[in-house]
Amino acid sequence: MIEHRAEEYIRLAMAAAETAAQRGNAPFGAIIVDPNGAVVATAYHRVKEMLDPSAHAEITAIRTLCQERRTTSLEGFRLYVNKEPCPMCCICMIEAKLAALYYGDSDEASVPCYIPAEEIARRARGHRLRVYGGILATETIRQREQLSRQYGL
Amino acid sequence: MIEHRAEEYIRLAMAAAETAAQRGNAPFGAIIVDPNGAVVATAYHRVKEMLDPSAHAEITAIRTLCQERRTTSLEGFRLYVNKEPCPMCCICMIEAKLAALYYGDSDEASVPCYIPAEEIARRARGHRLRVYGGILATETIRQREQLSRQYGL
Repeated sequence: MIEHRAEEYIRLAMAAAETAAQRGNAPFGAIIVDPNGAVVATAYHRVKEMLDPSAHAEITAIRTLCQERRTTSLEGFRLYVNKEPCPMCCICMIEAKLAALYYGDSDEASVPCYIPAEEIARRARGHRLRVYGGILATETIRQREQLSRQYGL
Repeated sequence: MIEHRAEEYIRLAMAAAETAAQRGNAPFGAIIVDPNGAVVATAYHRVKEMLDPSAHAEITAIRTLCQERRTTSLEGFRLYVNKEPCPMCCICMIEAKLAALYYGDSDEASVPCYIPAEEIARRARGHRLRVYGGILATETIRQREQLSRQYGL
């Protein structure tokens, strides 16, 4: 069951995606929410800015929050992102023991190696990441098209 | 065809794995070699040390080298690691456009989600990562067993 604030959180991830685009990065944004529903991390795609191929929005959010909390475990936390994460980011979520992933649309063409987040979660052992896709998908697609035109991405 | 210096480079990755273990991290080490065969990056597993679930040896090596060279593309470079990389690291190699991956043994139990590096490379589009496994595998397994005993990992 998708909890009722999922759309609100996806909109925050979309706002982070806009920040990414404004700074010349790919238009992806992620937020992390604690077990009480408080937003505790906001991050955007920073590969170009940081010269770091791993600095996708999701990994940047996880890394920042772990360092802030002095932990490598984010048990009970949930991640929201405007587009289905690539396998690199999905595995990082599993490494960090996040409880759940919520995403907007799926765009196979945007990643160099597409493996569905559901498949990654299903093949993982030891930790179960719950996956919910398609949240506000029409809006997340439309926003990226608009950002790509506006910022020539 | 596996070029003749592969074993020499895997031994350097093993030395980095020993450094990881000495500092209380999981016993994994990686090196990156430039198109001329020069070792240009050495890194070890730093998840605990950095409080960063993405700080595997491979990603740490890629990130460090990219920042040093002011680039996000490592075309023509090769990565050597003592154990088959997890999918997170394989995708990062593809994102960074590395030419080839060489690894020691495969240990499915050491990762929360095992997907063979070969499978990741095969499912990637746009960039082909060549994958060579089993280099000095008996030695890489034996070393990790010894390091685990010695450092109580």
